Amino acid sequence: MRNMNTNIDENHHNPDLTEERRKANFSTQSLAELIWNGKERLERRRKIAEYVESHKDLHKSQPIAFMSREQRLESVAKLSVAMMEHIDNRGAIDPTKPEDAWYFNTLVMGIDGDPFHLHYIMAIPTLMNNCDEEQLSEWLPKLLNREIIATYAQTELGHGNLGKSANFTVVVALLFTQDSGWHGAHPFWVQIRDLETHQPLPGITVGDIGPKFGISSNDNGFLRFNNVRIPRRHMLMKHAKVTPKGEYVRPVHAKVSYTSMMFVRSIMITGQALYLANACTIAIRYSCIRRQGEILPGKGEVKIIDYQTQQFRLFPQLARTFAFFFAGAYIRELYASTMQGVGTGDVSLLGDLHSLSSGLKSQVSFQVALGIEQCRMACGGHGYSDASGLPHLYSVAVGGCTYEGENMVMLLQVARYLMKRAREICFGDSNEHASSVTNYLFSKESKNRVISFSINNCQDSALHAFEHLSRRLTLTAYDRLEALKRGGQGRAALSHQEAWNELAVDLTKAARAHTRTFIARNFIERVDKIQDVGVKNVMTDLLSLYLNYELMDCSAGLLEDGYINSRDMDVVRNNVYDCLRRIRPQAVSIVDSFEFCDKELNSVLGRKDGRVYENLLKWAQDSPLNKTEVLPFHEKYLGRAMKNARQKSKL
Amino acid sequence: MRNMNTNIDENHHNPDLTEERRKANFSTQSLAELIWNGKERLERRRKIAEYVESHKDLHKSQPIAFMSREQRLESVAKLSVAMMEHIDNRGAIDPTKPEDAWYFNTLVMGIDGDPFHLHYIMAIPTLMNNCDEEQLSEWLPKLLNREIIATYAQTELGHGNLGKSANFTVVVALLFTQDSGWHGAHPFWVQIRDLETHQPLPGITVGDIGPKFGISSNDNGFLRFNNVRIPRRHMLMKHAKVTPKGEYVRPVHAKVSYTSMMFVRSIMITGQALYLANACTIAIRYSCIRRQGEILPGKGEVKIIDYQTQQFRLFPQLARTFAFFFAGAYIRELYASTMQGVGTGDVSLLGDLHSLSSGLKSQVSFQVALGIEQCRMACGGHGYSDASGLPHLYSVAVGGCTYEGENMVMLLQVARYLMKRAREICFGDSNEHASSVTNYLFSKESKNRVISFSINNCQDSALHAFEHLSRRLTLTAYDRLEALKRGGQGRAALSHQEAWNELAVDLTKAARAHTRTFIARNFIERVDKIQDVGVKNVMTDLLSLYLNYELMDCSAGLLEDGYINSRDMDVVRNNVYDCLRRIRPQAVSIVDSFEFCDKELNSVLGRKDGRVYENLLKWAQDSPLNKTEVLPFHEKYLGRAMKNARQKSKL
Repeated sequence: MRNMNTNIDENHHNPDLTEERRKANFSTQSLAELIWNGKERLERRRKIAEYVESHKDLHKSQPIAFMSREQRLESVAKLSVAMMEHIDNRGAIDPTKPEDAWYFNTLVMGIDGDPFHLHYIMAIPTLMNNCDEEQLSEWLPKLLNREIIATYAQTELGHGNLGKSANFTVVVALLFTQDSGWHGAHPFWVQIRDLETHQPLPGITVGDIGPKFGISSNDNGFLRFNNVRIPRRHMLMKHAKVTPKGEYVRPVHAKVSYTSMMFVRSIMITGQALYLANACTIAIRYSCIRRQGEILPGKGEVKIIDYQTQQFRLFPQLARTFAFFFAGAYIRELYASTMQGVGTGDVSLLGDLHSLSSGLKSQVSFQVALGIEQCRMACGGHGYSDASGLPHLYSVAVGGCTYEGENMVMLLQVARYLMKRAREICFGDSNEHASSVTNYLFSKESKNRVISFSINNCQDSALHAFEHLSRRLTLTAYDRLEALKRGGQGRAALSHQEAWNELAVDLTKAARAHTRTFIARNFIERVDKIQDVGVKNVMTDLLSLYLNYELMDCSAGLLEDGYINSRDMDVVRNNVYDCLRRIRPQAVSIVDSFEFCDKELNSVLGRKDGRVYENLLKWAQDSPLNKTEVLPFHEKYLGRAMKNARQKSKL
Repeated sequence: MRNMNTNIDENHHNPDLTEERRKANFSTQSLAELIWNGKERLERRRKIAEYVESHKDLHKSQPIAFMSREQRLESVAKLSVAMMEHIDNRGAIDPTKPEDAWYFNTLVMGIDGDPFHLHYIMAIPTLMNNCDEEQLSEWLPKLLNREIIATYAQTELGHGNLGKSANFTVVVALLFTQDSGWHGAHPFWVQIRDLETHQPLPGITVGDIGPKFGISSNDNGFLRFNNVRIPRRHMLMKHAKVTPKGEYVRPVHAKVSYTSMMFVRSIMITGQALYLANACTIAIRYSCIRRQGEILPGKGEVKIIDYQTQQFRLFPQLARTFAFFFAGAYIRELYASTMQGVGTGDVSLLGDLHSLSSGLKSQVSFQVALGIEQCRMACGGHGYSDASGLPHLYSVAVGGCTYEGENMVMLLQVARYLMKRAREICFGDSNEHASSVTNYLFSKESKNRVISFSINNCQDSALHAFEHLSRRLTLTAYDRLEALKRGGQGRAALSHQEAWNELAVDLTKAARAHTRTFIARNFIERVDKIQDVGVKNVMTDLLSLYLNYELMDCSAGLLEDGYINSRDMDVVRNNVYDCLRRIRPQAVSIVDSFEFCDKELNSVLGRKDGRVYENLLKWAQDSPLNKTEVLPFHEKYLGRAMKNARQKSKL
C-alpha cells in the first residue's frame, strides 16, 4: 500500500504517532499542496525551513520563555541583522517573493515581534498607498534598503509604534488649514530620532510602553510631540493634498486612505488561521501520545484523543482553521482586485472589502482565541506550561481581537453596511450594491424549501439556514431601528445615533450571522473545487463538521422562528458526532499536512517526532531556576527562617 | 441627601468617577458588609489593608511585570519571611482567623504564587484529614511553626509540588502490600531535602518545571524517586492502614481520603469569584473614565460604558461574580457540615459535596476565565498592557480550569452522579438520595405551569426553566445510555464504558445544566434573605440580569422542546437590555463595594482614584527598557546595520 502520510519515520518517531500516520487515507503531500498554494511554493517553504535549520546564527540562543524582556529585544535585534545579511548577501530566499520573506521571518523571529515588523507591515504599505510619486521615490528606497527603521503611529499610548528601534514614523494626525479649518485624520511622514546618535529629536518624547500580554519582543511605544513642525510636503499627498497656497484638496473617496488598515486586516485573517493551525497541531499530536484512563477494562490506558469530549474540543477547531484559512485567501484576492480598481479610479469594491474585512477580522480573531484556549486546556496541566508553546500562542493571537480595530467596533461597521442594504431592500431599490457577498439578502426566500441536514447533503441546507438567519436578523434589526426613530406608543422618537445604541447588541448579532454566512459559503465553494479525491473526502468531513457545529452554535436563532425543529437538531448533533468519528483516524495526518516545522511550533508537546516526555524533562532542566540545586537566595530568606523556627521550638 | 457611596473624594479623585459615585441609590457600606460577611469582618479587612499599606517592607520593590522569574521568586521568599515576622511578633493579624491570614497573604504576595501557598492550602489540610493522632502530633506543629516547608505531590510533571523551596512533601502513590497486592493511591509523608544544606536527599531528583502561563512566582516542581524507602509509619493512617504485620485495612468510605481535594475545590469557588470581581472593578471603573465617540452629536465624547455593547460585555460578568460568590459561600458551608458528619462517621453528604464541588469548579473556573477576557477586551489596547493587571489576572485564573481536576473530567463526575439519580427515578426508587440540590429531579413537572418572564416575576419562571432543561437533559442522556447498552436495530450492544464515551458530550451538557440550576437557585435564595432595601434592589437587578442572561445562553435547549417560544425570547432579551440600563448608574458603586484596595487590584486602569492616564505614562516610564533613551545594544546591531546600509546606498 502506498504511504499516504509522507511524515512517517518509524525508526525515530514515537510509535503512537507512527500508528496514527499509517491510518491516513489521503495523501498529506496533496493536502500540503492545497494548503500552501501549489507544489512549487511548498517546495520553497521546505527549502527555507531547511536553510534556517542549518544556520545556527539564525537561531535564538534559548527559548524566549527563559529570557527577560531586555534579552528578548536584544535577541530579535541581533537576529534581524543576521537575517538581512542572509537575504542580501547569501541568497537565503528569493527577494521578489514576499510570502517567502514572511515565512523566513517567522522561522527566525517567531511570533513575539521584531523591530522590522511594523516597518514592513504598516509603514511601507502606508507609504505606497498614500505617497505621491515624488514622495515615494524619495522615501521608499531608504525603507527598502533598511537605511532607516520606520513605524506607524496612530492612536494613543498602547498602539502601533515602536518606541526604541524606529527613527522614522508615519503619524496619523488631524489636519487643520488656515483657510478651511479641520479636515480629519491624515498621514504624515516624520523623523523622530537622530540618524547618528539615535537620540530623540528636540520636542519629541518617545519610549517603550512596557510589557504586555504577548508580543513582548516588540518595543511598542508612546510618542509625544511638543512644538514639532512638519513641512507641508511631509503630508502624504497621493489622495488629499494641501497646495503651497494652503488650499485643501479632498480625496476621491473617503475610505481610500484607510486601505493600509484594510491590507493589514486582510492578511491578518490568514495569520490568525495559522495560529489556530499551530494550536491544533500541538494539541492533536499530544492527544495521541498522552494516555489516561481505560475505556475497555483490561485493554490498557487509551490515547486521550479517543475520548469524545476531547474530539469535541479539538476537531471543530481544526475545521474552523480551514474555514478561516480559505476566508483569508478570499479576502486577500479581494484586496488585490480592489486595489487594482482603485488604481484605475474604480472604488466600487471598497465597501465590500471594508465590511468583509471588518467582519472577518472580528469573528476570526475571537474564535481563534477561544479555539487556542480549548486546544491548550485539552493538554491538561502540560498545556499550562510554557513548554507547550500554547500560553504564548494564545497571548499573541488574542491581541488580534483588539489591534487593527476593536472587535465590537468592527462588528458595528459591518452592521452599518447591512443596514444600508436593508434600506435598499425595504425601498425596493435595485440590488446594484449587492455583490456575491450580499446577494442572498436581496433574494426572496422560497416557501417550498426542503430542509434536510442528512450528512451527505447538508451543505446546501446549512448554507440556506445561515442565510435565512442572517437575513432575518438584519431585516428585524432594521425594522426596530426605524421604529425607535419614529417613536410612538408613548415613546419619544430617538435620533439615529441613540436608536443605534439601543439596538447595538442586536446589530452585532446580525453582523456575526452575516460573517458566518460568508465563511460557510466560501468554505463550501473552495472544497467543491478540490480535484484530489482523497483530499476532497477528508476536507468534506471537515466542512460537514464546520457546518453542523455552526448550526448547533446558532440553533437558538433558527429554532426561534420555527425554521428548524428538534428532529433537525437531533440530526445535526448526530452529524457532529459522526464527523468526529470520521476525522479521528485522519487527525494527525491532517495537521501533519500543515508542515509546520518544530522551530515554528516552538512546543515540546507538538514535536513532529512525538518524543514528548524526555524532552519535557530536558526543557525543565534547562530552566534558569535549575542551574543550581539550591537557589542562591535560599539561605538568606527561607533557609534562615526555618532554622530560626527550629531553634525556637527546641527552647 | 445621604452620601450612599462611601468612596467619594472629590478633591483627589477623577471627577468622572465622582460623578458616577454620586448616582448610588444604595449604601456601599451595606453591600460591602453583605459581601464580606458582616461589619466586624469588613472592619478587620480595612485594618489589614491599612497595615500592609503602611509597612513598606511588605511591598514588592517593583511591579512583577518588570521582574525576571528569578526576581519574582526572590521577592516572594523575602516577603514570606517579612510577613511571618509581622504575624508572629508584631500582631499584624489575629492568627486564629484564617480569612485574615488569607487576605494578609494576598495583599503582600499578590496572586502569582508564594513558597507557603501549597504548605497551607494542600499539605496542612491533607495531614489534618489523613494522619492518625500520633502522626499529627509529631508532624503538624513543625508545619504550623514553619520549621519546614511542605508541599503536595500527586501526579506527573507539571502539578502541585514546589521544586526549590519545599523540604517535605505529601506524596500520593500506589500502595502495594506483599499479602494482598495493589490497593490504589494512598498518601505518604516524605522528606525530600536535607534540613541543613537544603540539597535533595539521596535518590531524589527535584527541580522547577519552568515558566508557565501564570503563577510564575511559584516553583512548581518535578520529583523523581530512585530506590527511596519510606517507613511504614510514614503512610498517613487515619483512614486506610497497614499493620506492622503488613496487613492492609480499608477505609470506611472510598472518597474519604479525597476530602482535601474537595476542600481546595470548595475554597476555589470563592477565589475564582474574586478574580472576576477584580476584573469587573478594573473594567467598569476604566469604562467610566475612558471616552470615545459621540452618541448625541455635538454633546461631546461619551464614557464608553454608555455603549450598550460595552454594558453587555461587562454587566453579565458582574452578575456572575455575585452568583459565583454566593455559590462559594454555600459550598464552604456544605464542606464544613460534611466534615463534621465525617467526624462522627456520617458520610451521607460526601456524594453531594463531591458532585457539587466538581460541577462548580468546572463551570465557575471556565466562566470566570471567559469573563476576565471580556473585561480585558472591553479595555481596548490598554487591556492588553500589563499595566491593566488583566493579562496577569487571566493567566492566573484560567489555571483553575486545569488544576484540582481537569474540567471535562469534573463534568463527567457530575454526570455520573446524575445518572445514578436518573436510574433511581426510572426505577421509581424512593428519593432517599435526593438532597436540596437534586430534589427537583425527582419531582413531577406540573402540566399547568404558567411561564411568565416579565421582569418583576421572572425568578420562579427562570428557575423552573433551568430545572426543566436539566431534568430533560439528564433523563434523555440516561435513556440513550441504556439504549446503547442494550443495542438492537442493527447496533451491537456496548459496554457501559463504551456507551458512556459515545454520549460523553451530551453528559457534559446535562452536568452543566444541573450546575446552572444550583447556582441560580442559590442566588435567588441569598438575595431573598437580604434585609437592606437599597442593597436588595440593586442585587435584584443583578439577579434578574443573571437569570435572563443564562436563559439566553440555554435558550436553544428550551426552544427545542417547545418549553419556550419566540415571544418569551423577546421578553427575555428585553429584560436583559432593561437590566443593563438599570445597573448602568450603579455599576461603579457596586464594584466599589468589593473594597479592593489598589494594591490588590494591581492595575493602573482600575485605580480607585481614577487617575489613569498620568499613571499609565508613569508606569511605562518605569519600565526597564526606558532606563536609557537608546538601548545599550542599539549600536551593536540595528544602529550599525542602518549605517552600513546608508553607506552602501551612497556608493
